[in-house]
Amino acid sequence: MRARDLTAPFPTVTLDTSVHEAARLLSEQRLPGLIVLDGRGRPLSILPGTQVLRLAVPAYCMEDPMLTRVVDEAHADRFLRSLADRTVRDALPEQPRELPITDPDATMLEVAALMARTHSPVVAVVEDRQLLGAVTLQALMDWAITT
Amino acid sequence: MRARDLTAPFPTVTLDTSVHEAARLLSEQRLPGLIVLDGRGRPLSILPGTQVLRLAVPAYCMEDPMLTRVVDEAHADRFLRSLADRTVRDALPEQPRELPITDPDATMLEVAALMARTHSPVVAVVEDRQLLGAVTLQALMDWAITT
Repeated sequence: MRARDLTAPFPTVTLDTSVHEAARLLSEQRLPGLIVLDGRGRPLSILPGTQVLRLAVPAYCMEDPMLTRVVDEAHADRFLRSLADRTVRDALPEQPRELPITDPDATMLEVAALMARTHSPVVAVVEDRQLLGAVTLQALMDWAITT
Repeated sequence: MRARDLTAPFPTVTLDTSVHEAARLLSEQRLPGLIVLDGRGRPLSILPGTQVLRLAVPAYCMEDPMLTRVVDEAHADRFLRSLADRTVRDALPEQPRELPITDPDATMLEVAALMARTHSPVVAVVEDRQLLGAVTLQALMDWAITT
């Protein structure tokens, strides 16, 4: 089994997609993450759903749970609604790191190791720098338990 | 909005559940992760789906993508099927780290920060050391975009 055999179409966003629209996609299509394309249709980044949340959370709350605790309920709700004001560009991590991107010939072991290393339930499959689709953790698990 | 308002029942496993059974739960119920209970019904750990995969991936493949590349397709498939031989006990990370566990009074900001910090799309909600259920990334996103 190779990545190409489990690759399926996957919705994409661009840097200019609003985070609200991205959150709507995640919610309505029950996606585990998002694939971000550059202007030429090439994958620029993969954002696991949990990392989209970083945008709504002030830095001091990311680092200090005790400080988060003192934010009252109304303000906490407001932070999460502030997602609407940002774009996907703001959600990308600053530090370059390994991206969950592979080629169609990757084995399932390579895909699994990549998902585990990057904590990403979505791996983008790319050929000739163009996105073919994605392998999801769900697709990989479905395959692993039925073989 | 508080954690209790978005808490829903969530399937659990124990240390002795086979990884195959855990993978079947993840697959069939489309869960983003697993809550592991100890013998007294208390949450011991939360395993995001991507981390269940670690069990099927030899350590040298986790660290070195080039080594993973040289494993042929038949052996790669076999590694993933070897999930069946292990239990959840084997899947728990050795290093203690922050767990995505909170109390019912946590605000949505606390839940979001916890998901983002721990890369976990599942947060267990615990009261008096007993599991009430879980808040999922899906539930949080659904709430965030409709308010």
